[in-house]
Amino acid sequence: MSSAPLFEFITAIAGEAVSSAFEDAPLVDVHTHVYLPRYADALRARKDAPRIASLDIGGRTEERLLILDGEPAAGRPVGPQYWDREEKLKFMRRHNIDVSIVSLANPWLDFLSPDEAIRLANDLNVDMDAYCAGSPIADGLPSLRTLYGFGVLPLAPQVPVSAIVDAVRTLKNLPNVRGVIMGTRGVGAGLDDNTLEPLWEAIQASGLVVFIHPHYGVDSTAFGPRDNGHVLPLALGFPFETTIAASRLILAGVLDRYPDLKLLLAHSGGALPALSSRLASCVAHDPIVSTRLKHDARFYLGKLYYDAVAYGPDELSLAAAVVGRAHKYSESGGSYDAEKASRQLLFGTDHPFFPPLEETQRWRSVDENLAAIQEAQGLGVTAKDEVRGRNALRLFDLIS
Amino acid sequence: MSSAPLFEFITAIAGEAVSSAFEDAPLVDVHTHVYLPRYADALRARKDAPRIASLDIGGRTEERLLILDGEPAAGRPVGPQYWDREEKLKFMRRHNIDVSIVSLANPWLDFLSPDEAIRLANDLNVDMDAYCAGSPIADGLPSLRTLYGFGVLPLAPQVPVSAIVDAVRTLKNLPNVRGVIMGTRGVGAGLDDNTLEPLWEAIQASGLVVFIHPHYGVDSTAFGPRDNGHVLPLALGFPFETTIAASRLILAGVLDRYPDLKLLLAHSGGALPALSSRLASCVAHDPIVSTRLKHDARFYLGKLYYDAVAYGPDELSLAAAVVGRAHKYSESGGSYDAEKASRQLLFGTDHPFFPPLEETQRWRSVDENLAAIQEAQGLGVTAKDEVRGRNALRLFDLIS
Repeated sequence: MSSAPLFEFITAIAGEAVSSAFEDAPLVDVHTHVYLPRYADALRARKDAPRIASLDIGGRTEERLLILDGEPAAGRPVGPQYWDREEKLKFMRRHNIDVSIVSLANPWLDFLSPDEAIRLANDLNVDMDAYCAGSPIADGLPSLRTLYGFGVLPLAPQVPVSAIVDAVRTLKNLPNVRGVIMGTRGVGAGLDDNTLEPLWEAIQASGLVVFIHPHYGVDSTAFGPRDNGHVLPLALGFPFETTIAASRLILAGVLDRYPDLKLLLAHSGGALPALSSRLASCVAHDPIVSTRLKHDARFYLGKLYYDAVAYGPDELSLAAAVVGRAHKYSESGGSYDAEKASRQLLFGTDHPFFPPLEETQRWRSVDENLAAIQEAQGLGVTAKDEVRGRNALRLFDLIS
Repeated sequence: MSSAPLFEFITAIAGEAVSSAFEDAPLVDVHTHVYLPRYADALRARKDAPRIASLDIGGRTEERLLILDGEPAAGRPVGPQYWDREEKLKFMRRHNIDVSIVSLANPWLDFLSPDEAIRLANDLNVDMDAYCAGSPIADGLPSLRTLYGFGVLPLAPQVPVSAIVDAVRTLKNLPNVRGVIMGTRGVGAGLDDNTLEPLWEAIQASGLVVFIHPHYGVDSTAFGPRDNGHVLPLALGFPFETTIAASRLILAGVLDRYPDLKLLLAHSGGALPALSSRLASCVAHDPIVSTRLKHDARFYLGKLYYDAVAYGPDELSLAAAVVGRAHKYSESGGSYDAEKASRQLLFGTDHPFFPPLEETQRWRSVDENLAAIQEAQGLGVTAKDEVRGRNALRLFDLIS
């Protein structure tokens, strides 16, 4: 693949022996979260979800994160792993992760007033840049730091889109911020809201990667009254939300109008790959939408990037397949592209979520995602290395 | 595979030349619906959804099916294809379908009072048996008719489970009824409701196949205000509902307690295959459920049957893979089982839904599902024949 010489060139001019972590390939985590201290304080100041509350848990005072009202099991325990950079670096060293592209965790800013959202987005982006700027140089890639970040935008109800576009532009002044993370609600009516057209235009022009990440899931009554902990909202609700958001973007023609947008979907696109042929068939059979898009709906899956947070090799193979086949579904026809198939998948961990239930050296959730890449069908050895790191270095403009 | 000789034996003793339709393999449709005339009349008598209404559409009176309140585009046009057996047979001949296992279409009976639901279920099952009994002998398989059916159960709020169990038992007197179709709400609290334990026990004892089919989708506010026709509820909401229902059954331990249940999931299991490793990881990381089940959550996907209504080969391959790998996730360990992988997939069409927008000889939706089987990775030639028909003949006890 064309990137391999480039990468070798960069490590060669760095004038250092390639460290053991880089003997095969860099490991880059594109799905790893932080509650920046300023954001954690904002959550501590709140009386309603989302908030961080000090609760009495079995006689001990513990901080708990309550993301949604009526959260099961009194929320989840939070501590330094959620905000302390040293904890992030320790986790990375333990798992041989060379570079992380860190993002604020959900629910970002949509519970704030417009003025608060605009101010806090600005402050958090400056914080994120500083959080990354203070990180060590990456082992084996001395032109790079260990940490880069996604910024946030003031996406909250009533925020004028011009203010959001301004926020995109100011991100250019923050050298360690390489993208933006966002939920699926936009300014209240979803990401397919016509109001957001200038935002997509500005983001496309900026070259920033957009990480689309779920928060709300779907209406929880669907999960029934049985106590299944967080399993159903997390395992199903989260990916359903991402699937709906991406499908709405496709159906609104956003990917026809802004074909150079770099949209990264959380959790390997959720259920979008598995339902994409059904989606295409439903589009083709519905008189309301059948002639709206330039291409078969499956074409647009080749425009998207997918983290490799799928937990299983067969699931990840499907994400690769839907990217590889996308050009077969372009208006002008095309063929399966095996190289493209792997180029749009990027390793991730979802740290600090999914910690092991018992103390262990390595996290099971990380090893599941690494094993998924290792065992995925249809990806060659080089392609697997790309998924583990080089795809991310290229996408975030960290190597040319 | 062991079934091939059996099948050849049956066609041989039939003493007839195998017809052209059977030269390769029978084609059996397990996902094909009918609104039996008695049921259509019940829907015509209603003032609220679900109902069949006579509407003025552009100056012409048309019957429209309104499944949910606030249905987009004034519901869908309905006509003889929805209730007339001759139309079903014509569709089958046109697509070389040899045998169909017909089911009542959603929403079945859950809008009825308990007494009405019990009475109508009984009458509809007798109707279904007669609908099938009057069908021609299958070409090339003279021991079989063209049509067999799924029955319905009086699954509606407040119906005593004993009455539902009685309904299961009476199905034994209807020789052409080979299973039951049901939605996901049970008697109001979902299929993981403890109240339903005697029902699962009775169904397991009966050997009847349970076809789990969506109707409600998920809360439609998630799909936003843009008019996308029926696309999002059908393409995403339907499979999400099935995925949630199957996951809730797994988490409730129903498949641990009733391991011989034959559950057939609509639309290739929806998003369940694609989210199954995430589901397993969420279970393993959640203290509320991590020790509840006998096996890793992925094991249970090998207990399920999937129609091959996936519209794409990569999607269908994933359904095969999750069945094939299931034993790797049993408590006692195991290995990938390529033969099992294909055995639990069964061709379907979803007729009379997804009619082509323009008059054509063959339906695009049928050809998409046939092509998905033909092009699926990891299935050999024999396995593809099994998916097209023999798996169904075995599952529904039509060949031994």
